[in-house]
Amino acid sequence: MNNNRYVIGIDYGSNSVRCVVINVVNGEECGSAVFDYPSGDAGVLTDTANPHVARQSPRDFIDGIEKSVKPALEQAAATTGFGTDRIIGIGVDTTGSTPIPVDADMTPLAFHETFKDNLNAQAWMWKDHSSMHEAEQITELARQNRPHYLAKCGGTYSSEWFFSKLLHCLNTDRKVFDAAYSWIEFADFIPAVLAGIKRPEDVKCGVCAAGHKAMYCEEWGGLPDNDFLATLNPALAELRPRLCQKAHTANESAGYLCKEYAATLGLPEGIAIACGAFDAHLGAVGAGVAEGRMVKILGTSTCDIMVAPNAQELPDIPGVCGIVDGSVLPGYYGIEAGQSAVGDIFNWFVTYVCQGNADLHANLTRKAAALKPGETGLLALDWNNGNRTILVDARLTGLLIGQTLHTQQHDIYRALIEATAFGARRILDRLSEYGVEIKEVINCGGIAEKNPLFMQIYADVMGRPMKVSASAQTCAVGSAIMGAVAAGPDKGGYATPEEAQKNICSYKDTVYTPDPDSQTTYNELYALYCQLHDSFGIKGTQFDHADVMKRLLEISQCAKSE
Amino acid sequence: MNNNRYVIGIDYGSNSVRCVVINVVNGEECGSAVFDYPSGDAGVLTDTANPHVARQSPRDFIDGIEKSVKPALEQAAATTGFGTDRIIGIGVDTTGSTPIPVDADMTPLAFHETFKDNLNAQAWMWKDHSSMHEAEQITELARQNRPHYLAKCGGTYSSEWFFSKLLHCLNTDRKVFDAAYSWIEFADFIPAVLAGIKRPEDVKCGVCAAGHKAMYCEEWGGLPDNDFLATLNPALAELRPRLCQKAHTANESAGYLCKEYAATLGLPEGIAIACGAFDAHLGAVGAGVAEGRMVKILGTSTCDIMVAPNAQELPDIPGVCGIVDGSVLPGYYGIEAGQSAVGDIFNWFVTYVCQGNADLHANLTRKAAALKPGETGLLALDWNNGNRTILVDARLTGLLIGQTLHTQQHDIYRALIEATAFGARRILDRLSEYGVEIKEVINCGGIAEKNPLFMQIYADVMGRPMKVSASAQTCAVGSAIMGAVAAGPDKGGYATPEEAQKNICSYKDTVYTPDPDSQTTYNELYALYCQLHDSFGIKGTQFDHADVMKRLLEISQCAKSE
Repeated sequence: MNNNRYVIGIDYGSNSVRCVVINVVNGEECGSAVFDYPSGDAGVLTDTANPHVARQSPRDFIDGIEKSVKPALEQAAATTGFGTDRIIGIGVDTTGSTPIPVDADMTPLAFHETFKDNLNAQAWMWKDHSSMHEAEQITELARQNRPHYLAKCGGTYSSEWFFSKLLHCLNTDRKVFDAAYSWIEFADFIPAVLAGIKRPEDVKCGVCAAGHKAMYCEEWGGLPDNDFLATLNPALAELRPRLCQKAHTANESAGYLCKEYAATLGLPEGIAIACGAFDAHLGAVGAGVAEGRMVKILGTSTCDIMVAPNAQELPDIPGVCGIVDGSVLPGYYGIEAGQSAVGDIFNWFVTYVCQGNADLHANLTRKAAALKPGETGLLALDWNNGNRTILVDARLTGLLIGQTLHTQQHDIYRALIEATAFGARRILDRLSEYGVEIKEVINCGGIAEKNPLFMQIYADVMGRPMKVSASAQTCAVGSAIMGAVAAGPDKGGYATPEEAQKNICSYKDTVYTPDPDSQTTYNELYALYCQLHDSFGIKGTQFDHADVMKRLLEISQCAKSE
Repeated sequence: MNNNRYVIGIDYGSNSVRCVVINVVNGEECGSAVFDYPSGDAGVLTDTANPHVARQSPRDFIDGIEKSVKPALEQAAATTGFGTDRIIGIGVDTTGSTPIPVDADMTPLAFHETFKDNLNAQAWMWKDHSSMHEAEQITELARQNRPHYLAKCGGTYSSEWFFSKLLHCLNTDRKVFDAAYSWIEFADFIPAVLAGIKRPEDVKCGVCAAGHKAMYCEEWGGLPDNDFLATLNPALAELRPRLCQKAHTANESAGYLCKEYAATLGLPEGIAIACGAFDAHLGAVGAGVAEGRMVKILGTSTCDIMVAPNAQELPDIPGVCGIVDGSVLPGYYGIEAGQSAVGDIFNWFVTYVCQGNADLHANLTRKAAALKPGETGLLALDWNNGNRTILVDARLTGLLIGQTLHTQQHDIYRALIEATAFGARRILDRLSEYGVEIKEVINCGGIAEKNPLFMQIYADVMGRPMKVSASAQTCAVGSAIMGAVAAGPDKGGYATPEEAQKNICSYKDTVYTPDPDSQTTYNELYALYCQLHDSFGIKGTQFDHADVMKRLLEISQCAKSE
């Protein structure tokens, strides 16, 4: 008979939801399952008239609970022979900020007949950029009247965030806005559904989404104040009491498994459900984030997560997406940075420019790996989807320089990898300027596991050792860790996330360390990258660019002659 | 019995040689043939270790005489029933500057067993850029000691030109340099071969190659002086007496068909052979170049040819490839400008980046034609092969800006067409600043004939009507015109090229005129192009680029919403 305790982690990504069941004692993954969102284009609802629109179906999210948890439990039961009474906790992470308009009994507006085909009544996906102008308006108002709101989110409020999206809906589709009793973050919505919460007021929302994306801070009484919201639009202030009033860290309990979902999933009622948080933040927990150790979640976009003890004062860091007390681990400031497109840039290049299929990635990677640093003669800015950190500007675009009549696909592919590495280094440098020193980087995600070239370039460009998380599912593992802490030691869980991390997190044997020669070349290219970055990204900066192309040629010739 | 008179035009391009036989009275083309150079990659000999190297086989050139003239004559004879005694003149044009090292009896060094596999003993093709450093050295020396040399060739001596190539050979392969008794321009070499000239000293060289590429000017006594050459390298000064001493316009006779070639080609001995000139210059003649009327030869690269009366003083025009008295028409300054890569950029994109075949051009053109000006959101610099005019800098490279995750192949294709059009306009603007006003543009070459989208974009960007030469072979027609003038009125030819042009040149019915709305958008984009052009191309210029990407987005959104 199996007496071990197990926890469930549910991880909602951009295109699918994944569930893992892990052993609380040693982190062993004994069951997992994935459910691909059936709607739209790989789960994304788009608008042919506006490329900035990206929505998702709340139905996919809800269906995803049963479709991922049940098969994962079945697999785990088959592997370990456990009974479902051995499950002590459930944790949930999602992408975000992804606000979902709901009615007074927590039903998504999208489920109403009137709104079922209305994109604005769906979940507003994190990468939706249709609210660019509203983001500028919020930033401008905060700059004038509430600079402290901006200081915590890097100096600019993004079009990807909560209030930009609500305000854009208010400006462009008043019917949907008025029909919404409240807007619930995806990360808060799923735990509430599992706990059977039927009133938006009863939802225990997570500090991760609220703090990083909705300007929530206890210092100023939670969400932005009434006056501020009313200046943007009185309807926003009117909505405020029905939004998050008090936010919680992810180790806290959001409720307990309700009768309906206990029946659906074949689990006992009353299992502890952790408060929801973003995939990147719980992914960082699952990967072993700690002071001095950044966790990089490499996917279509990238999230960098760090922590700094909240016992001491941390200065505001311009251009960093957010610094929120408790958003990653209780007792630490959670610091979030990131790049709007990483995997998405390679996918764009392969799919749109090369018109190749997924196999082309491996082929281009192989050829690119035969090149030396600098040999391509190319340099790119990684802004095809804007810049999230440190410029926080969705209206920046890509740049490629140095192409000759001999430039080939794999040259460009390598230059794009390097561009994302330079973007990543620029973030490290900014953190370092403000006293947050990173000694090593733990990487998660498919790219980290599958692409040694990518990892070596990152090590060489960033000048830090790159480790790779042993689990392919660090986000789900992080959620499971929080499920184990929400359950607590009495139920066989843990008192703190750190204790859980010590037992559960592990790393792959291969560590990518910087090569000194490559570092030298990349330092030169990085200086040129910074010149273009500042020139095209920061108003009021001027450079003499007349040597850029020639420097790239020289570096290339030098690399070839080695 | 056919009593008409006919002339032969032989046009040596980058990858093939073409011969046409035309009726002197009305320009009717009654025979033509093409011979593709069999050596290397479509006639180009490359060096895997150095992408700047581009050489050609003198054997291909010589074989090309018989292989193109004979079948063209056969076709003409079959069509018209003429006898070969009806041929009154032969004209020749070639690419260049393409110096060929020869021994004392005019045999190319490449024909010697010792040198047959040595790339440096072959013809140094126009687009060979291996002499970049030598070009800089020549420019620097002239800037210090002979500024007047530079003034006529746009302020910078190019790596594509005669003395850069000779000096590079001298610096890197002394054996070849020492074995060369002289170096003959391709354009001078073929007429000399036809005329049976057996000593380099007896070659009648054309002012077109000498003036535009070898700093020849009667004002200062021909080629650069001994001191100048000796400072570069004493061996160059030593060579000077065996190089061109006196240069001629293309209407002058280079000699008369020798016995050997008369036999080879089945023609009578003694037919007048015009002095050789470059393909672009004679193409302009064949297309009807005249004051106020630019001829654009659109090919892998582009040559712009204009004329201005030599009765009045013409100021030096910085960055224009050359201003040479008589290089196009006697009595006029010939002005040459151009772009190092036009068709080559589209070929590069289709072949190297898209990995598509030639059909993809038509497919991308069709999709690009459905876009409005500015809709792509992209802007490019057309410098994949450096910039010939007005920056005269082979070490510049390409740039593409504005790409998002939605940018597609045909967006980039259109942006590349637009980039070449902006580059073309920049040349027009520079000429206009110095008093050379262009009212209309005659276009020649495959792109002009086959791609209405390209022509309309050029009309819209350049703000001038675009006409297309009726003949697909204007270069060969221009050569034939010079053959007719070299023969003279007594033999049934003409006294002047203008008289011949009046009878021979004609245009296609379709004229592309600027669309005012498109012009407005392109004026905005052109301003951004100029900003990037100057920023990356001219030392000491600084701009605030922070708005560039945003302006492109705005222009794109505006175009889409129309």
